[in-house]
Amino acid sequence: MYRTHNCGELRISDVGKEVTLSGWAQTIRDKGFMMWIDLRDRYGVTQLLFNEEISTPELFKAARTVGREYVIQAKGVVIERISKNDKIPTGDIEIEVKELTILNASKVPPFTIEDDTDGGDDLRMKYRYLDLRRNTVQQNIIFRSKLAIETRKYLAGKDFLEIETPFLIKSTPEGARDFIVPSRMNPGQFYALPQSPQTFKQILMVAGMDKYFQIVKCFRDEDLRADRQPEFTQIDCEMAFVTQEEVLATFEGLTKHLFKAIKNINLPDFPLMTYDEAVRRFGSDKPDLRFGMEFTELNDVAQNKGFKVFDSVELVVGINASGAGEYSRKQIDELTEFVQRPQIGAKGLVYVKYNADGSFKSSVDKFFSQSDLNSWAEKMGAKPGDLMLVLAGEEEKTRKQLNELRLEMGRRLGLMKPGDFKPLWVVDFPLLEWDEDTERFYAMHHPFTSPKKDDVSRMLDGDHETMKSLRADAYDLVINGVEIGGGSIRIHDRALQERNFKLLGFTPEEAEAQFGFLMGAFEYGAPPHGGIAFGFDRLCAVMNGQNSIRDFIAFPKNNMGRDMMIDAPSPVHKEQLDELHLRQVGVEEKKG
Amino acid sequence: MYRTHNCGELRISDVGKEVTLSGWAQTIRDKGFMMWIDLRDRYGVTQLLFNEEISTPELFKAARTVGREYVIQAKGVVIERISKNDKIPTGDIEIEVKELTILNASKVPPFTIEDDTDGGDDLRMKYRYLDLRRNTVQQNIIFRSKLAIETRKYLAGKDFLEIETPFLIKSTPEGARDFIVPSRMNPGQFYALPQSPQTFKQILMVAGMDKYFQIVKCFRDEDLRADRQPEFTQIDCEMAFVTQEEVLATFEGLTKHLFKAIKNINLPDFPLMTYDEAVRRFGSDKPDLRFGMEFTELNDVAQNKGFKVFDSVELVVGINASGAGEYSRKQIDELTEFVQRPQIGAKGLVYVKYNADGSFKSSVDKFFSQSDLNSWAEKMGAKPGDLMLVLAGEEEKTRKQLNELRLEMGRRLGLMKPGDFKPLWVVDFPLLEWDEDTERFYAMHHPFTSPKKDDVSRMLDGDHETMKSLRADAYDLVINGVEIGGGSIRIHDRALQERNFKLLGFTPEEAEAQFGFLMGAFEYGAPPHGGIAFGFDRLCAVMNGQNSIRDFIAFPKNNMGRDMMIDAPSPVHKEQLDELHLRQVGVEEKKG
Repeated sequence: MYRTHNCGELRISDVGKEVTLSGWAQTIRDKGFMMWIDLRDRYGVTQLLFNEEISTPELFKAARTVGREYVIQAKGVVIERISKNDKIPTGDIEIEVKELTILNASKVPPFTIEDDTDGGDDLRMKYRYLDLRRNTVQQNIIFRSKLAIETRKYLAGKDFLEIETPFLIKSTPEGARDFIVPSRMNPGQFYALPQSPQTFKQILMVAGMDKYFQIVKCFRDEDLRADRQPEFTQIDCEMAFVTQEEVLATFEGLTKHLFKAIKNINLPDFPLMTYDEAVRRFGSDKPDLRFGMEFTELNDVAQNKGFKVFDSVELVVGINASGAGEYSRKQIDELTEFVQRPQIGAKGLVYVKYNADGSFKSSVDKFFSQSDLNSWAEKMGAKPGDLMLVLAGEEEKTRKQLNELRLEMGRRLGLMKPGDFKPLWVVDFPLLEWDEDTERFYAMHHPFTSPKKDDVSRMLDGDHETMKSLRADAYDLVINGVEIGGGSIRIHDRALQERNFKLLGFTPEEAEAQFGFLMGAFEYGAPPHGGIAFGFDRLCAVMNGQNSIRDFIAFPKNNMGRDMMIDAPSPVHKEQLDELHLRQVGVEEKKG
Repeated sequence: MYRTHNCGELRISDVGKEVTLSGWAQTIRDKGFMMWIDLRDRYGVTQLLFNEEISTPELFKAARTVGREYVIQAKGVVIERISKNDKIPTGDIEIEVKELTILNASKVPPFTIEDDTDGGDDLRMKYRYLDLRRNTVQQNIIFRSKLAIETRKYLAGKDFLEIETPFLIKSTPEGARDFIVPSRMNPGQFYALPQSPQTFKQILMVAGMDKYFQIVKCFRDEDLRADRQPEFTQIDCEMAFVTQEEVLATFEGLTKHLFKAIKNINLPDFPLMTYDEAVRRFGSDKPDLRFGMEFTELNDVAQNKGFKVFDSVELVVGINASGAGEYSRKQIDELTEFVQRPQIGAKGLVYVKYNADGSFKSSVDKFFSQSDLNSWAEKMGAKPGDLMLVLAGEEEKTRKQLNELRLEMGRRLGLMKPGDFKPLWVVDFPLLEWDEDTERFYAMHHPFTSPKKDDVSRMLDGDHETMKSLRADAYDLVINGVEIGGGSIRIHDRALQERNFKLLGFTPEEAEAQFGFLMGAFEYGAPPHGGIAFGFDRLCAVMNGQNSIRDFIAFPKNNMGRDMMIDAPSPVHKEQLDELHLRQVGVEEKKG
């Protein structure tokens, strides 16, 4: 037996006990006649004491050979510490060591195993097993495990069945790019890895499973942005015989449970906001509600006053940054540069300072009188000491730009408080989304999303504006400006599904080839159903107030989709490709 | 709201309640003035009543349009049934329907949705959503979900962390064939789908995670036998700072918990049997202990009596089939044919009937006296009324043949009782296994399995017999003759791992290219560790006394690795292959 206790559990009440501990040598202090080793494992740190007066010379000598990250086993007696450490739960005791075994040596790690490490990203990814030893990363992985357990506990308690759906499925060109897997037994044919279990969970509803969930890996072969992974995890759910209201209630319940069980935070009821309202008030379908700074439309008070930039545009819209009235020229220039960055693309930024004396100082003083600016202030609810920031242009773009500026002001003013969680449901999403590049409509959620009942009759109307105005029974769960989950009530009627595919530009043959099995299933007693999928990696990050999902994944890939530790992907032997009836084109093959 | 209750929960105490139910029309009985529809969902069946005297003509007419498997919603009042049905929990009541809504129609299903369906395998696979509605299949899926929940509950309660390991990893030629996934972002390179998370879970131990588990999909591109799937599920576990004893105790605990929690069966402590003992006593490393019929070696009493077939062989070995002494000539011929089948390959079968009068009748009466045969009976513990069955030949082969015969006799004599569960641990497996075809040694478990401490020093000895005699710290959990789980204590020392790779015929370069990351990790403080993996699909089947795993998988593939429902795998567009720098050879490409 390697240990009687772990390194986190011994207390003052254990004094006198003979114990055996195993773990990693975290720090080693040698005072000549005394030596201490902090022994670390997942559960904590316990101090080992070697005392020249008591220990044998052999033991003392052995202790001297121990280096950082060595794996050792120590037998000894729990004693009370003379100088206690109240920062760790084991800080009242130490182990007077009688026997020491070096279980494994360690080279000097390429970076320090500390919360603030000196290792760069690449080094940490290559030696991920050392990075994972760091307390911060380890806690993230432990958090994730707890979150999964609590999710399952909650859903199982609500009669959900966890059902595994297959990983080797069929490639469908709709949506993101699939990873494909050649089939050796079926030459010329390929599986695809699922982008989500969408069609399978709907099939499970047709199969009468009633309530399904799964915490499941999904795959997308997309060019990776900073915070995307080719494989990611979803909490995937579906329910039969439900309305939107019941789906939202169930998953609001889940979310509240997770925050309570793991972070001991009681979330209030989640407000509901339509997509249109969210866009109007915040310029975004995922507003961060930790702060206000809502949009105020200024067309009626800012247009036709002689400022041509405003007069010619669709929308003049502003936010009031409370307490930023003292912003310097430099700070305002920074904001202007911020909105003019190509990713945001505003032409310029109008600011109005509401001075402490009640006067206004703005970048458009030439065109607007103090009284004009006062009417802006009134509309925006600004007070002396505030800074009003105004953008103008084409409606949709300008709202998006102002959303970015609002978030930037939220960051600058410290309004995105860690530990503050503001969830909401965004509902009534558009059914379709126009894509300028391909000049066609795409499903905003996916092709299986049901239009709202009142909009079904208008679905045959091919008129562009009508199409844009169609609304779906689709909903997103947003927390602190991050989309955590999204779902919809699904179509369960073959005719309506066909009509939807047609709107999306599928020929009947294409629809049949890709989704014939689902439409077929709809003909054999498909119940009304709906569901949701939560981004599990993102939920982990948001609940911990972090932006990056990567540190919540045990073995993440880098931006080239590469696992730096195992060095994958990698070339394969020509024989492997031969068996699959494949040949590489324009790349060198590995010799067998 | 589609329902106030499900179809399984209403009782006599609910009489008088206004309820709404939704579900599938299971059976429809029309007596002219009265109609009954059995409404089914996952939770049960509730009888709907339509009564001409009370119902409106419109309602009655609507009810007449309902067909089998229609999805309907019924509002009404719970009333006490006149003729109760004590076979179902809702059998005391029925619903007097006031409102009926047809939520979806259904075509006539291609097979009946009954426990004993008339659908063949292919039809059931194609319409899997209908097959899954059948109570037997649905109960299997529900069982599986419960088993997963209980597994997680138990392991989480023992401080195990559930940690997801990646699906896009690196191809390694050792072991079974990998499914590979071309990487678009890294042309000429491929991921592989994991055959198991083996190296990752070991890395997690090096990373200090201490106790890991995962219920995880694994992939093997093998030619499929009747009961294999290209994707299958493991309960995958690993622990640091453990000996074999502690691993076995933990997973014996898990197994007992699962049987208790789900089947209310208290399993006794699991016996331990070495591999050598299992092979000696039962001719198998996975003996079915629901019955005895142990092997008796007869060389000393059966050889050198003038029967040349016996005299020239390595081993004469038999079993005593208690109570089979009355077997007819025909039955014994069947047994002879059974052992002579090419899959088994015995040359012949010797039988000895122990007659009720104490005399013996055998197929070798010419060579053996009654007294000779009596000495066999004494060795085998046979009694009047028993049948002794004896095989002879090369030791290893003969034991395997007799194992098959023993199992066949177990089946014939009804000794494999459903509901009887006999688990055991088989331990001390050989480290290496000789393969006649490739004339080399393979790892019996896998290359990361630790040899037993006493055998490490002999690992350098290249002698064939020494190699065969090396024992590993490897163990299998066997229940009723089925291997449910297998694992080992792992090597955690770089030098020993290198030596093992060398024994297995790896060049140092091959070992480094494939497993360099793991051997590298061993240099940075790798703790002693070990683990186990349970075949989750198989555990489901065994716990239900079934042989086939397929009905415990929601969407299984057929023997050609094909999903008959979605029709995968399938051809992909040439553009998809172009992006991956791949071209097909010898198969037709799909036009874009």
